[in-house]
Amino acid sequence: SRSIRLAVIPGDGIGQEVVAQGLKVLSAALPQDVKLETRSYDLGAQHWHATGETLPDADLESLKNHDAILLGAIGDPSVPSGVLERGLLLKLRFAFDHYVNLRPSKLFPNTPTPLAGRPDIDFVVVREGTEGPYVGNGGSLRTGTPAEVATEVSLNTAYGVERVVRDAYERADARPRKKLTLVHKNNVLVHAGHLWKNIFDRVGQEYPEVTTDYLHVDAATIFFVTQPERFDVIVTDNLFGDILTDLAAAVTGGIGLAASGNINPSGAFPSMFEPVHGSAPDIAGTGKADPTATVLSVALLLSHLGYGDEAARIEAAVAEDLAGRDAAAPRTTDEIGDALAARVSG
Amino acid sequence: SRSIRLAVIPGDGIGQEVVAQGLKVLSAALPQDVKLETRSYDLGAQHWHATGETLPDADLESLKNHDAILLGAIGDPSVPSGVLERGLLLKLRFAFDHYVNLRPSKLFPNTPTPLAGRPDIDFVVVREGTEGPYVGNGGSLRTGTPAEVATEVSLNTAYGVERVVRDAYERADARPRKKLTLVHKNNVLVHAGHLWKNIFDRVGQEYPEVTTDYLHVDAATIFFVTQPERFDVIVTDNLFGDILTDLAAAVTGGIGLAASGNINPSGAFPSMFEPVHGSAPDIAGTGKADPTATVLSVALLLSHLGYGDEAARIEAAVAEDLAGRDAAAPRTTDEIGDALAARVSG
Ligand SMILES: CC(C)[C@H](C(=O)O)[C@@H](O)C(=O)O
Ligand SMILES: CC(C)[C@H](C(=O)O)[C@@H](O)C(=O)O
Repeated sequence: SRSIRLAVIPGDGIGQEVVAQGLKVLSAALPQDVKLETRSYDLGAQHWHATGETLPDADLESLKNHDAILLGAIGDPSVPSGVLERGLLLKLRFAFDHYVNLRPSKLFPNTPTPLAGRPDIDFVVVREGTEGPYVGNGGSLRTGTPAEVATEVSLNTAYGVERVVRDAYERADARPRKKLTLVHKNNVLVHAGHLWKNIFDRVGQEYPEVTTDYLHVDAATIFFVTQPERFDVIVTDNLFGDILTDLAAAVTGGIGLAASGNINPSGAFPSMFEPVHGSAPDIAGTGKADPTATVLSVALLLSHLGYGDEAARIEAAVAEDLAGRDAAAPRTTDEIGDALAARVSG
Repeated sequence: SRSIRLAVIPGDGIGQEVVAQGLKVLSAALPQDVKLETRSYDLGAQHWHATGETLPDADLESLKNHDAILLGAIGDPSVPSGVLERGLLLKLRFAFDHYVNLRPSKLFPNTPTPLAGRPDIDFVVVREGTEGPYVGNGGSLRTGTPAEVATEVSLNTAYGVERVVRDAYERADARPRKKLTLVHKNNVLVHAGHLWKNIFDRVGQEYPEVTTDYLHVDAATIFFVTQPERFDVIVTDNLFGDILTDLAAAVTGGIGLAASGNINPSGAFPSMFEPVHGSAPDIAGTGKADPTATVLSVALLLSHLGYGDEAARIEAAVAEDLAGRDAAAPRTTDEIGDALAARVSG
C-alpha cells in the first residue's frame, strides 16, 4: 500500500490556520489506500524566542526523511527582519536544493482583479531558487557609522542556471502554447545577464517547438499589467522571480490565491510547498485568512508526488468554489477549508 | 540677461523625434529674455558603429560646461545589450553623480490606465542613481563554459544612501501628504537592507512631520496595482527603482508619459533629463512616438534650473492636452509637440 510521509511546518501568524485547511483538503483528496503520515515541526518566531534557534540541525536531518514538506508562513514583527527568512525559509530552500520555485498564476472566472477588462491570465513562473542575490553573500564594513559600506553579491553559475532553464523549457514544451520568456536585466547586470541569456539560447536549440522571448525585468512588469495574456512560461532569477510573482498574484486575485512549490526535481531532497503570502500577523486568529493558496499548494504537492488526478480534483474544487464566491458574504478560513474538502470528497 | 546652456543627446530610435518636440516646447515656454544655447551630441548606436566609442572623454568634458542635459533614448538591437547602456547612459549618471533619479507618476484625467476603478495616483519615486547593483562591479569566470560563474555586486554606502534618503525626506516634507515609503528587501538582502533601513529611520527623526512606512519590494508591486493611492514619495535602491518606475508608468498611462530627472542636487555637474521609455526602434520614424514624456522631462529640467512657473505652464499644457485626447484619433509626434508648444505659448 502507498504512503506519503509529510512534514508540516505551520510557522507563524496565519500559517497555522491555513495549513490546517490544507491538510483537511489533502486528506479528503487522497485515495483510501494511501496512508498519510504527518509530522509537525514547531519552527518560527516562538521557537526562536524560546531557543534562539531557527532550524536545529536535528530538524533539518529529520525533515529529509519525508516525501514532501508543507509550509504555512514564516515571519513575525517581534523578530528582526531577515532572521527567520534567512535562518529557516531560505535555509530550507538552499539545503534541499529547491532550484525550481514554481509559481503558477491563473485568473479564475469571478475572481477579483485590479485590472480593467479582466485579461485572460494563465502563466507559470519558474523562479530560480538557489542562487542569485539570495545566496547570502555580502556583508558590511564600519556598520552603523557614516563610513559604512554594505555589499550584496549575486552568484550565478552555468550549473545552476542551466538546470532551471531546462526545467522551464520542459514545462513550456508540455503546455499548449509552448512559449517561454526569459526575464532578466542583461543591459545592466551584464555578467549574470549574459550567462542567463546564453544558456537560455543554447538550451532552446533542443526545444524547437518552444517559442522564446526575452524581456528586461522592468519591461516585464509593464506587460504584467497591460498584456498579461502574452505570457505562458516565464523563467527568471531568484530576486526578479520574487518580485514578479507577487505582482502576478496581485493581478490574479491576490496573494490569498497564489500557490508555490519549491521543487528539487532530482528527488534527492523533499520538495516544499507553501502559499506565496506571508504570515499576516494583523489578521492571525481572526478567521479572515484565505486558505486557498495553501490548498492550491497542496495540489502542486500532490502533482509533484505523482497524484495528478487528485491534484486536478483539488484545482477543480477551487475553481468551482471561486466561481460561487460572493465578496459581500465572506466566509471564515475554516468554512472555506470545509467547502473545498467537501467538493473534493464529493 | 539670463541664459541656459543645454546639452542635447537625442540618441537612438525615437530619441531624435521626441527630443525635437521637447526643444520646441522648451523654446515656447522660456521667457523672452532667457537665451537658450543648445549643443547637440551625436552619441548612441550610430556613433558606436562608426567609432567603437560610446562616450569620448572630450564629450564628457564638454558636457560639463552646461547647465543641464536633455537626453532622448539610448539603445539599438544592432548593439550588444549593455554596451550603450553601461557605456553612455549609466556612464553619464555615474560620472555626473546623479544620485537622485526623480520619477513622478500621476494619473491624469482621461488618460488610459490598465487599472479598474481609476485610482487617484500621484506619487514620486526617488530612485538612488549611483550605487546598488548598478555599479558595474561583477564579472565572470570560465565564461561560456559549463563551469561558468558570474557575479554582480551591489555596493551601498552610508554616504550614498543618506544623501538620497535626505533628499526624499525634503521632497516628502514639501508635499501636502508628507508621506515617505522606503522600499527594499531587507529580509533577504540584509546588509544593504539594514543600511537603508537604519539611515531611513535615523534621518526620519529630523522630519517629525513626515509619516514613514517600509515595504518589501515584492509587496510594493502589489500595492502599485491594488492601492497606488497610498503612495506619496517613495525612496528606493537603484534596481528596485528601475523596476517600480516602469510599473508606475504602466498604471499611469504608459511609458509614453513617464518623465525623469537624473539630478545632482549639489550642482557640481549638470543634471540630465530624459523620458523613462527606451528608443523603441520598432516605431522609430513612423511618427507614432508620444513626445509627452520628453516634454514633461523638460518641465522637470526647467523646475530644476529655477524656472518653476515655466515648468508649471508645461505641466498644465500637458494636462489640458491629455484631457482632450481621443484614442480613436491619434496624432503624430510632431502634432502633439505643436499642440503642446501652442498651449504653452498660449
Ligand atoms: C519571505 C521571503 C524570504 C520570501 C522570498 O523573498 O523568497 C517570500 O517573499 C517569497 O516570495 O517566498
Ligand atoms: C536603459 C537602462 C540602463 C535604464 C536603467 O535600467 O536605469 C532604463 O531602464 C531606465 O529606467 O532609465
